[in-house]
Amino acid sequence: MSGWVIGVDLGGTTISVGAASRDGTRRAALRTVATKAAEGADAVVGRIVAEVRAVAADLEAGHGAARGDILGVGIGSPGPLDRASGVVIVTPNLGWTNFPLRDRVAAGTGFDATLDNDANCAALGEWWQGGARGGRHVVAFTLGTGVGGGLIVNGRLFHGASDVAGEIGHMTIETGGRRCGCGNHGCLEAYASGPAIAARAREALGGHGASVLRDRCGGDLAALTAAHVYAAAAEGDPVAQAIVRETAMYLGVGVANMLNVFNPDVVVLAGGVAQAGDALFGPLRDEVARRAFAPAVAAARIVPGTLGAEAGVVGAAATFLQQRGLGA
Amino acid sequence: MSGWVIGVDLGGTTISVGAASRDGTRRAALRTVATKAAEGADAVVGRIVAEVRAVAADLEAGHGAARGDILGVGIGSPGPLDRASGVVIVTPNLGWTNFPLRDRVAAGTGFDATLDNDANCAALGEWWQGGARGGRHVVAFTLGTGVGGGLIVNGRLFHGASDVAGEIGHMTIETGGRRCGCGNHGCLEAYASGPAIAARAREALGGHGASVLRDRCGGDLAALTAAHVYAAAAEGDPVAQAIVRETAMYLGVGVANMLNVFNPDVVVLAGGVAQAGDALFGPLRDEVARRAFAPAVAAARIVPGTLGAEAGVVGAAATFLQQRGLGA
Repeated sequence: MSGWVIGVDLGGTTISVGAASRDGTRRAALRTVATKAAEGADAVVGRIVAEVRAVAADLEAGHGAARGDILGVGIGSPGPLDRASGVVIVTPNLGWTNFPLRDRVAAGTGFDATLDNDANCAALGEWWQGGARGGRHVVAFTLGTGVGGGLIVNGRLFHGASDVAGEIGHMTIETGGRRCGCGNHGCLEAYASGPAIAARAREALGGHGASVLRDRCGGDLAALTAAHVYAAAAEGDPVAQAIVRETAMYLGVGVANMLNVFNPDVVVLAGGVAQAGDALFGPLRDEVARRAFAPAVAAARIVPGTLGAEAGVVGAAATFLQQRGLGA
Repeated sequence: MSGWVIGVDLGGTTISVGAASRDGTRRAALRTVATKAAEGADAVVGRIVAEVRAVAADLEAGHGAARGDILGVGIGSPGPLDRASGVVIVTPNLGWTNFPLRDRVAAGTGFDATLDNDANCAALGEWWQGGARGGRHVVAFTLGTGVGGGLIVNGRLFHGASDVAGEIGHMTIETGGRRCGCGNHGCLEAYASGPAIAARAREALGGHGASVLRDRCGGDLAALTAAHVYAAAAEGDPVAQAIVRETAMYLGVGVANMLNVFNPDVVVLAGGVAQAGDALFGPLRDEVARRAFAPAVAAARIVPGTLGAEAGVVGAAATFLQQRGLGA
């Protein structure tokens, strides 16, 4: 079980690259650079390759690793994508269509490489080394600009028939509800993503007087974020508290749906939301208990992620190990 | 691959018992009796045991089977239940709590027996010998008095952490929606079960004039059923047609949710709804295409069940084979 794996977490804003020991107990050399997608796919691949090389050099210099100790590179990318061919089918954030990301990174670095969905990677990372450790059947919610997710069945990522499985942010929870970025109405993402939380707060402020939320964003409601809402709620602001309670309800519906359908032993909520603490997790667990079947509620730990922004990198390394039959 | 398996489908109204050859290609001796749950658990077990014995006798008389050719009995029961101990935890329809159904049937018949959820059995039956044959990752919706379901992962029933997995009728699709029999609000079952379809039709008639639905139920709206609605829609009744379109929309939401979350290669809709034909399946597929991700839509066949009322018996036999490692 010796050796290192390099993980790449490619996002619309930043690229994070780091390394994990094959047994997952050691992590090293986390580096983050701006994606600058507007410069084109070749430039983005160039940055990924440069960061992978820099991480490999760090491993050799700082951890005594030989070149042969580096088993390969796991890449997490926005999807949809095709794991078998290593091709990113389409990513609106990056502007790519049918881009052979895996093979381009492999050619540029000289390492074996695998590709998987970024939310799947975060799910696997939290299961391998984070809040969902020890789980057998795991549902991960990744909460940020969007709401993504991943399913783990018997300790392995479940990809479904065409690598789409785990898109739990696009479960309809209000049949005629809010418009979602995917074009559908009433998706969980349309209520519980960061921008959706901010939008609901802006709407709530329209009908109210005083709220520290106005000060938090310097009077510019367009600049209001979910982080402002969580912070104002923690200060006792009633408008923000109402939004957090409502968010907990919507997330509770999403979690309850997954409990009834999938009956996991761990549900992990990863992303910035993990910082919201009991103000969110308390009412969320109450909503789940109201909606899901008792034996499913009893079986499931509902926990925040513990890896923070590193989940995607750690999980990208883990998905390399699983895809190559090397562990994790 | 020789031998026979006996399947038992225990319902609140009827008990069906039949046999399937180990390779699934032959079915024999289907028998149905009334459950008469009010007579108590001992009486119900007595009826199951008598029917299993009668089916075994039929196999010996009509199919040349020796006693030793009968591998065992698979039992499908309303849940929740615990497969490992063979105990039915609670069934409101039968009035049972923590009842050791598997061992009682085994003791009464002298056959090895297994227990599983009735909707899981119907799902496995449709996969083994019905509309979902050839699927690898399958979602089954069982539509009747309730809305149940089952998940098949890599050709095996997926039970989750505590045998609850597949309760897709209790996915919330309207967060503040119609009250469901489970106590929750807005479950798919509260819109798409037979009684829910009839209730929505009664409500629609309240605001309208003429409809053949009034004649169908002899003027007694309390006697209106989902079957009346499907039949009146087929005759061109506009109120009934609106209810069928609305049902297709709600079922479409449920199917789309499962496509995005689970990405199956087959979705099978079993139960009386299978007879509704294109009037239901056409708009249902349209709704799914509007709501689910394109690669998930492309990967999934959406089909009616083909086994009808026999799905539960056939699947109960199949779950015996899977639980005992004998095939299916």
